[in-house]
Amino acid sequence: MGPGRLHALIDGVFAIALTLLVLDLPRPAHARDLTRELLHQWPSYVAYLVTFATIGVLWIEHHGMMSAVRRINRRFLERTLLFLLFVSIMPWPTALAAGYATQGAEARPAAVLYALTMMAMGLSFAWCWRYLTDHPDLVVPAARAAFPTGTRRAALGGLVYLVAILLALVSPPASFAVDAAVAVYFAASRSEVPGLVDRASSDPD
Amino acid sequence: MGPGRLHALIDGVFAIALTLLVLDLPRPAHARDLTRELLHQWPSYVAYLVTFATIGVLWIEHHGMMSAVRRINRRFLERTLLFLLFVSIMPWPTALAAGYATQGAEARPAAVLYALTMMAMGLSFAWCWRYLTDHPDLVVPAARAAFPTGTRRAALGGLVYLVAILLALVSPPASFAVDAAVAVYFAASRSEVPGLVDRASSDPD
Amino acid sequence: MGPGRLHALIDGVFAIALTLLVLDLPRPAHARDLTRELLHQWPSYVAYLVTFATIGVLWIEHHGMMSAVRRINRRFLERTLLFLLFVSIMPWPTALAAGYATQGAEARPAAVLYALTMMAMGLSFAWCWRYLTDHPDLVVPAARAAFPTGTRRAALGGLVYLVAILLALVSPPASFAVDAAVAVYFAASRSEVPGLVDRASSDPD
Amino acid sequence: MGPGRLHALIDGVFAIALTLLVLDLPRPAHARDLTRELLHQWPSYVAYLVTFATIGVLWIEHHGMMSAVRRINRRFLERTLLFLLFVSIMPWPTALAAGYATQGAEARPAAVLYALTMMAMGLSFAWCWRYLTDHPDLVVPAARAAFPTGTRRAALGGLVYLVAILLALVSPPASFAVDAAVAVYFAASRSEVPGLVDRASSDPD
Repeated sequence: MGPGRLHALIDGVFAIALTLLVLDLPRPAHARDLTRELLHQWPSYVAYLVTFATIGVLWIEHHGMMSAVRRINRRFLERTLLFLLFVSIMPWPTALAAGYATQGAEARPAAVLYALTMMAMGLSFAWCWRYLTDHPDLVVPAARAAFPTGTRRAALGGLVYLVAILLALVSPPASFAVDAAVAVYFAASRSEVPGLVDRASSDPD
Repeated sequence: MGPGRLHALIDGVFAIALTLLVLDLPRPAHARDLTRELLHQWPSYVAYLVTFATIGVLWIEHHGMMSAVRRINRRFLERTLLFLLFVSIMPWPTALAAGYATQGAEARPAAVLYALTMMAMGLSFAWCWRYLTDHPDLVVPAARAAFPTGTRRAALGGLVYLVAILLALVSPPASFAVDAAVAVYFAASRSEVPGLVDRASSDPD
Repeated sequence: MGPGRLHALIDGVFAIALTLLVLDLPRPAHARDLTRELLHQWPSYVAYLVTFATIGVLWIEHHGMMSAVRRINRRFLERTLLFLLFVSIMPWPTALAAGYATQGAEARPAAVLYALTMMAMGLSFAWCWRYLTDHPDLVVPAARAAFPTGTRRAALGGLVYLVAILLALVSPPASFAVDAAVAVYFAASRSEVPGLVDRASSDPD
Repeated sequence: MGPGRLHALIDGVFAIALTLLVLDLPRPAHARDLTRELLHQWPSYVAYLVTFATIGVLWIEHHGMMSAVRRINRRFLERTLLFLLFVSIMPWPTALAAGYATQGAEARPAAVLYALTMMAMGLSFAWCWRYLTDHPDLVVPAARAAFPTGTRRAALGGLVYLVAILLALVSPPASFAVDAAVAVYFAASRSEVPGLVDRASSDPD
C-alpha cells in the first residue's frame, strides 16, 4: 500500500472533468444552416480548448508533484479533495463563459467566474505543495529541496488569474487571453519540477 | 491478484459521483442579469459543497477500511456494491435539495430525501465494516482488533442523519446544517481507523 | 505488462455505466407536491435498482473470469469491447423502460428493448468465456477445466432474457420481474467460477 | 514510478468517452408509437456503433503503442493530451452526425465535422507515434525498429478520413461508410504492432 489509490481517485477526477466538458458543447437541433450555427458557436470551442489545456497542464504538474510523494495522510488527502473540487467544477464556469461570451455586458460576470475558478484550482494546488513542503517526511528525500520552488511556482500560477479577474470587468476577451496564456506558459515550460516524469523511469538503458 | 480491481471500481464510482455533481449546477441561458441569477442559485453551491465533502470524507474513511483488507469474497463485493449504489445516486437528491431549497414547503421532502440517501450511504458503509468484523480472515491480522470500533463509528455516523431527517420536516435549513456538520466532523477527525493511510507507507525513511 | 490495462478500461466502463444511471432519474422542477411527484416516479427507482444490480453482478462474474486470464490478444480485446458496448448502453433502455412503464401499451416495446439489451450483455459475455475456453493458452492452467462450465453458465444467463422478451409482449411487469430475478439469482449464487475472488489472495495467513 | 499514471488517465478518458456516448441516444418522451419512434432513430444507433468501434479500435492500437513505452516526458504527455482532446470530444460530432443524418443537405456539414474529428484523432495519434520514433530512448529497445512502420500506419489511418471529408460534401451516407470501413479494417487487422498485447505476457507457460 502506498499513495496508489489516491492516484486512482485523482486521475479519475481529471479524466472525467476533461471528458465531461463535451456535454456542454451545444448540439443545435433542426438548424436550417448547420454550418453557420456551428461557426456561431465559436466561443464554445475556445472555452473547451482553454479549459482542456489548463486541466491537462495541471494534471502534468500534479503528476510531477505526486511522483515525489511517498506517503500520504488524512490532512493531505483533504487538501487534495479541495483541489479536486475545483477541478471537477470547471465544466460549469466553462459552459457559462462560452454561453455568455457574445452576450454583451453579461460576458463580464461569466469571465470573472471562469478566472476565479481557475485561480481557486491554482491556489488549492499551491496549498497541496505547501503541505508537502511543511511535511518533508511525506516526500522522497531527494526531492525535498525542490518543494519550496514548486510551491512558489504553483502559487504564482494561481495568482496570475487575479489579473484575469480584474481584466474581466473591463474586457472579457482580454481576460480569456490571460487564462489561455497561463496554460500555454505552463505547457511550454521545461522547468524540472521534483519527480518530473522524465526522471521517473526505474529502468535504465 | 488481490483486492486491487475492487479498488479500481470503487475509486471509479467515487471519482465519477464527485464529478457528475457539476452537471446539476444550473447554467442559466440568456440571463439579463447573470450576476443576480448566479447569486440566486446559492443553494446549488451549498448542496454541491456538502455532497462533495461528504462523499470525499467517505472516500477517505473507505480508503482506510480497505487498506486493511487482504482478501475479498462475493458477499463482501455485494455489500460494497450496495454502498456504491448510494454513493452513485447522490447527485440526484443533491439536485432536488438545491432546486427546492427556496421553494417553501416543498423544501421539506427534498431535505428528507437528501438526508435519507446520506443515511443509506452511512449505514451500507457500516454494513461493510460489519462484514469484515464478522469475517476477520479477510482482514490483515494487525488491524482486526480495531474493526468493532470502526463498525460502531460508521454506524453512528449513519444514524446521525436520523436527526437530519426529523429536522427536515420542520426546518430544511437546520436539516442541511446537520448534514454539513457530519462531513465537517469526519473531516476534522484524527481518529486512527485501522489501516489509516498514514501508516500505509511501505517505504521507511 | 499483462492484462492490467484491459482491467482498467473494463472497470472504468463499469463504474461509469453504474454511475451515469443517476442522470436519468427525473428531477421534477417546480413541483407543487414534490412528495407525490417523487412517489409517482417509482418505475425509475425500480429500473435503477434492477440495472444497477445486473451490471454489478455482471462485474463480479466478469471479475471472476478475468482473474483467471494471464494473457490477452487482439481478438479477445475485441470481444470484450463488444461486451462493454452493451454494458455502456444500458442507461438508455433503462431510461426508456422507466419512462414508459406506466404509459399503457407503449410499455411493451420499452420492456422488449430493456430485456434485449440485457440479453446482448449476457450473450456477449458468454462469447468472451467461449473464446477463452477455445484458447486455453490465455488462461491460468489451474482454471482451464472450469471454463466450459463458466461458458454454459453465462450463455444460460443470457438466454433467460428470451423469456423476458416474450413476456414483455404480454405483460411488461412480468418481464421486468424476470429481469430482476436473473440479477437476484446470480447475486445469491455461491457457484465457484474459476479464479473466484475469494481464492485471489496471494497472501496466506 | 513509470508510465503507469499516464495509462490511468488515458484509460479513464477512453472509458468515459465510450460511455458518455449513451447520453446522446435520444429518449423520446410520451411517444404515441414508441416502436416507430425508436426505429426512426436508426442513425443514432449507427453513429453510436461506428464511434464506439473507432474509439475501441484506437484504444487497442494505443494500448499496443504504450506497452512499448518505458519512459515518458513532458512533451510526450502534451502530445498525448492533444490526442485525448479529440477522443473525448467525439460524443459531440457523433450526436450531430446522428441528429442531421436524415435532415437533407444539413447532413453534409455534420458528416464533414464527424470525419474531421476522426481525422484529428488519427493524426494526433500518429503524432504520438512520431515522437516516440524520434526519441527511441523512451521506447523498449526490442520494439524500436517497428516504430517507423507504426507511425506510417497511424498516419495513413488518419489520412483515409480525407476521403470521408470530401465524400461528405456529396453523399453523407458514403462518407459514413468510409468512417465505418476504417474501424472495420483496423478491427480485422492482424498486423503485429510493437508491444502487441499478445506478446505482453510476462508469464511463460
